[in-house]
Amino acid sequence: MGKKMFRLDKNSTYMMPAHFGGNAFDPSYKAVMRSTMLSMTFETDRQALEQYIPEELELRSPEVQVALSQLYEINWLAGGYYNLINVSSPVRFNGSKDHVEATYPLVLWENRTAPILTGREQTGVPKIFADIEDLHVSKPYYATSVSYEGNTFLTMNFEAKKEVTGNDFDALKSQMKSLDVIGWRYIPKVGAPGADLSQFIYFPQWMGLEKAWTGTGTFRWTELTPMQNPRQHHIIRALASLPVKRMKQSVLAEGETILDTPNSRLLV
Amino acid sequence: MGKKMFRLDKNSTYMMPAHFGGNAFDPSYKAVMRSTMLSMTFETDRQALEQYIPEELELRSPEVQVALSQLYEINWLAGGYYNLINVSSPVRFNGSKDHVEATYPLVLWENRTAPILTGREQTGVPKIFADIEDLHVSKPYYATSVSYEGNTFLTMNFEAKKEVTGNDFDALKSQMKSLDVIGWRYIPKVGAPGADLSQFIYFPQWMGLEKAWTGTGTFRWTELTPMQNPRQHHIIRALASLPVKRMKQSVLAEGETILDTPNSRLLV
Amino acid sequence: MGKKMFRLDKNSTYMMPAHFGGNAFDPSYKAVMRSTMLSMTFETDRQALEQYIPEELELRSPEVQVALSQLYEINWLAGGYYNLINVSSPVRFNGSKDHVEATYPLVLWENRTAPILTGREQTGVPKIFADIEDLHVSKPYYATSVSYEGNTFLTMNFEAKKEVTGNDFDALKSQMKSLDVIGWRYIPKVGAPGADLSQFIYFPQWMGLEKAWTGTGTFRWTELTPMQNPRQHHIIRALASLPVKRMKQSVLAEGETILDTPNSRLLV
Amino acid sequence: MGKKMFRLDKNSTYMMPAHFGGNAFDPSYKAVMRSTMLSMTFETDRQALEQYIPEELELRSPEVQVALSQLYEINWLAGGYYNLINVSSPVRFNGSKDHVEATYPLVLWENRTAPILTGREQTGVPKIFADIEDLHVSKPYYATSVSYEGNTFLTMNFEAKKEVTGNDFDALKSQMKSLDVIGWRYIPKVGAPGADLSQFIYFPQWMGLEKAWTGTGTFRWTELTPMQNPRQHHIIRALASLPVKRMKQSVLAEGETILDTPNSRLLV
Repeated sequence: MGKKMFRLDKNSTYMMPAHFGGNAFDPSYKAVMRSTMLSMTFETDRQALEQYIPEELELRSPEVQVALSQLYEINWLAGGYYNLINVSSPVRFNGSKDHVEATYPLVLWENRTAPILTGREQTGVPKIFADIEDLHVSKPYYATSVSYEGNTFLTMNFEAKKEVTGNDFDALKSQMKSLDVIGWRYIPKVGAPGADLSQFIYFPQWMGLEKAWTGTGTFRWTELTPMQNPRQHHIIRALASLPVKRMKQSVLAEGETILDTPNSRLLV
Repeated sequence: MGKKMFRLDKNSTYMMPAHFGGNAFDPSYKAVMRSTMLSMTFETDRQALEQYIPEELELRSPEVQVALSQLYEINWLAGGYYNLINVSSPVRFNGSKDHVEATYPLVLWENRTAPILTGREQTGVPKIFADIEDLHVSKPYYATSVSYEGNTFLTMNFEAKKEVTGNDFDALKSQMKSLDVIGWRYIPKVGAPGADLSQFIYFPQWMGLEKAWTGTGTFRWTELTPMQNPRQHHIIRALASLPVKRMKQSVLAEGETILDTPNSRLLV
Repeated sequence: MGKKMFRLDKNSTYMMPAHFGGNAFDPSYKAVMRSTMLSMTFETDRQALEQYIPEELELRSPEVQVALSQLYEINWLAGGYYNLINVSSPVRFNGSKDHVEATYPLVLWENRTAPILTGREQTGVPKIFADIEDLHVSKPYYATSVSYEGNTFLTMNFEAKKEVTGNDFDALKSQMKSLDVIGWRYIPKVGAPGADLSQFIYFPQWMGLEKAWTGTGTFRWTELTPMQNPRQHHIIRALASLPVKRMKQSVLAEGETILDTPNSRLLV
Repeated sequence: MGKKMFRLDKNSTYMMPAHFGGNAFDPSYKAVMRSTMLSMTFETDRQALEQYIPEELELRSPEVQVALSQLYEINWLAGGYYNLINVSSPVRFNGSKDHVEATYPLVLWENRTAPILTGREQTGVPKIFADIEDLHVSKPYYATSVSYEGNTFLTMNFEAKKEVTGNDFDALKSQMKSLDVIGWRYIPKVGAPGADLSQFIYFPQWMGLEKAWTGTGTFRWTELTPMQNPRQHHIIRALASLPVKRMKQSVLAEGETILDTPNSRLLV
């Protein structure tokens, strides 16, 4: 033993394994990346959706956004890239002190493990793994498929109709200036039911929109058996069961995405 | 809001996303799987190694085991499979109450995200992602390669010499009856340096050995640049810097591996 | 130019790129590998099937076998491994000289490119690429999924019921002693319709059966759009359209597979 | 048998499996795709290089180009994408009739099987498989890694220095108007040494250059053992052995690439 063994530095932040060293906590750090996003929003049944919204939150509107993002030139991955599928709804947190509106991610699938770990452990974003194809682009048609160990569970198709310009573009750009998220960080107890951590976290993020197109979007869930997807089949079944009352806007957008992880904060 | 929104069940255990439901906590549950393990152990410099052992632990012996496991017919993955590389050392935890010996995993690379998440969040096993080839088998030669986004950082080669039989087999089988692990579960604070959870966890596991061979094992680390592996290059560099004073036993083993996750417990 | 440039050796056999050297043609060479095969056979409509059987062949029986093989410890891949899906029917070649019975592969999907190239270019076996999961094994249940760029097009499920023993095993073992194949090697003309090579090739192969189980097998095709699978969607559609009049035997088998490539011969 | 069985159409072109149907031969068809190319050229030793140039060709200059291309929005793959590494040298074919200059690809690695098959079988381009990372981009730094079953054998790094503009751009654009290739289509005999087809093929292609940057390029080969790469290790060793006498231009280019496959022709 003795003083040469590994000791945590009080001014650093760590991820497991901690004993190989962490990083000085830097409040000005931001995750910056290029992004192409294909987003589809639909109106669903409030009661059906509220089953999956924790009671600490209020559902602002019974709608669900299903969005593919292709992220690249990612600064914290030294220029690397990955794709994600974000399924989310608009919520309000009404705590004893905090009253904030943001987006609540029901689930994110990502095809890279490193951001899954940071998202879950730092900010409670419920990321899990899937294979996510880059967009196949045969203009004006765009398509992607999402699968788990060879089993497709989500396909998305988009037909671009019209570039967004003028006031519409300004409005969309303004809307993208706040894409803040509320994560629910849940870490289970060891050897017992219940949690060692169960926290709601406000996570600021935004997109500098550069180009956008509206068009016709469709998506389709395929339910999987427990043997096809033992850890996620219940999530897919839940999402597939949400009625699509009405498709709202479908948008293809390009720009720069920024995640302000160090300014995340616990909600109380 | 109201009573139809999602509420945690007090008798269940959850993983993120929690709001799609958890599992009743079952103390008798065990993770069971078939395994093929290729293990190489070497003696290193105590001071060099202790840099990476937290001071709450005592290094029992300055040795490091590098082991590939191919796991399949995994009950909790509905018959799925994955590979891992486990780099570990023998330690003792001397707490105010607990005094236990076990293996301390310095890092585990796994090629499947689901067990990375359970390992990290449930028991503090420091798992991260890599691509890990199944063993290439041209008897008596065995080989695997471990890479990150196309960059090889570890190769392992083995030449089987002799099947382990008789008393030697009984001794090895007995030794495999306890492969318990101490994990260090570290969850960072939000928006600040330091930890919200920093716990040492005892995690019982064992292998029912069925067959084993000894032989000549070699491994080679290749250091990567931050651009090749931005999140792990420091770990690889640390492991590559550990001097190999003497190779000890190299073993290829087959059997059944059991992880007793619900009987894991905090060490104090 | 001059004598130091690359020149073909008359006693060697080459694959592209030829100019890095070939291998001495060795008539005693055999491809040897371990294999696990899950095979399902069904009776279909003769006319439906004959659309896909070239008129140089005679369909011996209106049946189709769909078989997964996991191949490993492959000698010509230095101990590597890959999976394949073989869809085939029993045929007879009645040429001006040759009159032989064998299996005609309608298509093989493989998850490794090297054997796709040798199979196509050396023996006319119509191999194309797909992602093919190793069997998920939750005894007595076995499952695999086959997909192309994230789009599942075939799933296979098997429930093992009974180990094959005694006379049944001997009969099956005897049957596996000849798994010969007829390939149709077709190489197109350059800059014109038609072929530069169009040859039927007899390719001897067999399996040394070691263990087998019978059980209940099911498979399901999922048709894909041209955008999901631009080069194979017509093949999947054709196979999915074959009526399953009656499921015949489903077998899980283990053993050693041998391909006698150098004793392949043109059929005339 | 009879008239309902499969019969080739005389006006169509086919790939194996032919019996599911081909495509009407269309002389106006072109493969069109977006491309990002990172190209590095070096001067090497003439004799060293000529060992790998077939004697039917004349080496115009002892130089080798190593180029990564990321191809996307590919028309014949319905908007799909893939990457390739092209290693090539400038040659002249002096036949009994044809006298043409073009580029001779020593080898192409591609991370998608479909274009490997068309390239080899239609035009003799010696394509083989490797995993090829998309460019990691941390401006002005660009990097990729090429590996086979987890074993890195080529890394490329580029530091962009200067956008190409004005006359330099026009010159480069003009140069990219002809990227024609000579392939050597070699199909082995069945059951004997030697070839059933051994043809030199002229394959017209070009790039509509849109943007380009010059900079500093470096690449590094890592030789692999036969067990790491049983079918390609000799190719990598050959390329790694070519001395780099002088690095010439390194360029990052973006544009549209066009392959005029139906106007390919045999060289005699």
